[in-house]
Amino acid sequence: MQTPWDHRYAMRTQRMAASVIRELLKFAELPDIISFAGGFPAPDVFPTEEITEACNRVLKENGNIALQYGSTEGFLPLREMIARHTERYAMKVSSDNIMITSGSQQALDLLGRIFINRGDRILVESPTYLGALQAWNAYGAEYVSVPSDEHGMITESLEVALRYGPKFIYLLPNFQNPTGATLPLERRMKIIEMADRYGVPIIEDDPYGQLRFEGEHIPPVVHLDNTYRSNSNGSTYSGNVIYLSTFSKTLSPGLRLAWIIAPPEVIRKFVLAKQGADLHTATFNQMIAYEVAKGGFLDQHIKVIRETYLQRRDVMLDTLVESMPEGVKWTHPEGGLFLWATMPEYIDSAELLRIALEEKVAFVPGGPFHPDGRGHNTMRLNFSFCKPETINEGISRLGRVVKKMVKEHNQ
Amino acid sequence: MQTPWDHRYAMRTQRMAASVIRELLKFAELPDIISFAGGFPAPDVFPTEEITEACNRVLKENGNIALQYGSTEGFLPLREMIARHTERYAMKVSSDNIMITSGSQQALDLLGRIFINRGDRILVESPTYLGALQAWNAYGAEYVSVPSDEHGMITESLEVALRYGPKFIYLLPNFQNPTGATLPLERRMKIIEMADRYGVPIIEDDPYGQLRFEGEHIPPVVHLDNTYRSNSNGSTYSGNVIYLSTFSKTLSPGLRLAWIIAPPEVIRKFVLAKQGADLHTATFNQMIAYEVAKGGFLDQHIKVIRETYLQRRDVMLDTLVESMPEGVKWTHPEGGLFLWATMPEYIDSAELLRIALEEKVAFVPGGPFHPDGRGHNTMRLNFSFCKPETINEGISRLGRVVKKMVKEHNQ
Repeated sequence: MQTPWDHRYAMRTQRMAASVIRELLKFAELPDIISFAGGFPAPDVFPTEEITEACNRVLKENGNIALQYGSTEGFLPLREMIARHTERYAMKVSSDNIMITSGSQQALDLLGRIFINRGDRILVESPTYLGALQAWNAYGAEYVSVPSDEHGMITESLEVALRYGPKFIYLLPNFQNPTGATLPLERRMKIIEMADRYGVPIIEDDPYGQLRFEGEHIPPVVHLDNTYRSNSNGSTYSGNVIYLSTFSKTLSPGLRLAWIIAPPEVIRKFVLAKQGADLHTATFNQMIAYEVAKGGFLDQHIKVIRETYLQRRDVMLDTLVESMPEGVKWTHPEGGLFLWATMPEYIDSAELLRIALEEKVAFVPGGPFHPDGRGHNTMRLNFSFCKPETINEGISRLGRVVKKMVKEHNQ
Repeated sequence: MQTPWDHRYAMRTQRMAASVIRELLKFAELPDIISFAGGFPAPDVFPTEEITEACNRVLKENGNIALQYGSTEGFLPLREMIARHTERYAMKVSSDNIMITSGSQQALDLLGRIFINRGDRILVESPTYLGALQAWNAYGAEYVSVPSDEHGMITESLEVALRYGPKFIYLLPNFQNPTGATLPLERRMKIIEMADRYGVPIIEDDPYGQLRFEGEHIPPVVHLDNTYRSNSNGSTYSGNVIYLSTFSKTLSPGLRLAWIIAPPEVIRKFVLAKQGADLHTATFNQMIAYEVAKGGFLDQHIKVIRETYLQRRDVMLDTLVESMPEGVKWTHPEGGLFLWATMPEYIDSAELLRIALEEKVAFVPGGPFHPDGRGHNTMRLNFSFCKPETINEGISRLGRVVKKMVKEHNQ
């Protein structure tokens, strides 16, 4: 249909390409497809009972607050609780360092809004989180990418990238989306040192940090940066690292709740930007999260999530060993929701997806996660959403498709 | 504190001035202030019981959907319900014409994102809704303003403004924020004719349309435009008017739920923009709204809201007559949440506010609602939030302060 709006779009809409992930999620919704495509938490461990109780309590005791407009910064008791929890990282922040956002995607968007001018360069790992690229493309960002291996960003390549004068470094240090890789302590320290030398601040995006089911906890970059700069125990927040996290992977993504930790001056800019964007995040949802979490329930609940995801990851790893032909490699994530597979150079994963969908199995081709255009032979596999027996069946199907492509190539 | 972020803000943050409304809401939170400043619905008529029941039902029957990621367009049954309700305006749209937003503020922001390039002109009433100016300032909008009187935009002045080539016209036809004025049918038709002649589309922002407690319903601009263009009964949506409305004033603002009606092609652009902004609006909240509204409860509930607001408006009007000195005028809104007072030219309402706060009463000075810098002697008074006896006390106090300023001027 011709509409009078047709020739009125802003220039920036030209950069808003449809998200491949979102398009693929449409397949994931078909009931007969086994989907490893989405980044969905396991619905079978949603704490539905605790959330129901919290709703009833909040509405009974504070309905007038829960259903009314609230402050842009977010519900104060929730921000204070997050500040207290941050002390686990031996780091002292107050509610003035914290703003609640409508999911982490909004935090990424607001970062773009307050920091990115058209043509600004952002230093990212390659591959990196597609949602960040999508948010920042709308503000005209350009990317300087640093290649990564099974341990995340290859720090030997960092200095060359820093010479391009990026506005900030964007890192997902724990169980990265899409690769599942975790940055070792030495690489974290190297990045902090180099960032300091070049005067470039860091965004640490940490949605999965609490979902480690194997190996040793590594301190977050924000804490290590404090230690590096203060030469002390790191309890004083240096302000060099803006830290993002979320309730989406520990409580529920359907509530759309995440948070930003930043210097108070930066939080004030975030608040102004959020006022214009959506006034504030739903008061009711913030009060539910506070009510569920305040007594320490989430700490217990996270253990259940870890056990569930560990089992699912193991089934996926075992089935990959059984099903995949020689020449296919994959990561061994110690936490989070994803693993990353690399196929022989001659296999295009978008083509693979088309064939896999005929066999009723889906994943996300790795290409779009690479701002440098690489990764045509890679794919992201989610292991949190499907039950173990479904993972086994889906990966077996996928293995048969890959084997067929390898066989056809070798003929 | 000096932070490494200090010199890294984007150019557009220079335009993000603190919202006067939001700053004033801080006073409204002080327990001893009688505040007519916010745009808060009456908390005493929140349908807390019905929302509690809806939460329990949604979580029991569909917890796995409510707490999971959802589609960017919004929860399909809710969009279908809104489409059905739109038929009340003798206008046929489908769920493809509808996207759910995180409050109307997000709809305004996304409009800016997809339509406004730096320097684009937007035609607005003066005064107009501050939240729209705030959202669009971030995208570098310039404004062409048309003066208004007690019946809204003065259409005699419209043609001059249209010659500046605005990208769209922004209208709040019913019980406007801030003035409470309603555009009569003749003015609506005149605007539609002129917009058609100049080929300029219209944004109709209608948060309060259902809250008419006096006088005759006037068809929305979107319906009148359909009729004008099709020469028929207007049931075919022409696409020339993008229509915004919300659950904030009929159900609860704390759930952050609103919607956009637009041509499907424009909805697709909105969806791409929203993907980058916050992925989707909370699934749980959308399902609660659907559950509460689906059986027709809101139609009954709106009657209760209307009665409540009518009574409060009457108390405010009566007390204004009793308390205000000669030379002060105010509007007589037939619905909505606000009325608008104009004082003698020599009274500056920002100065008045400073003195009024000493007497523990607050309102919003009218200046910031005027993109043309006028309105220094005006103020917005909200009558929905306070109970009748509080309105009486607060307006009496305000009257004493204005009388004092008038007396001092005349000495």
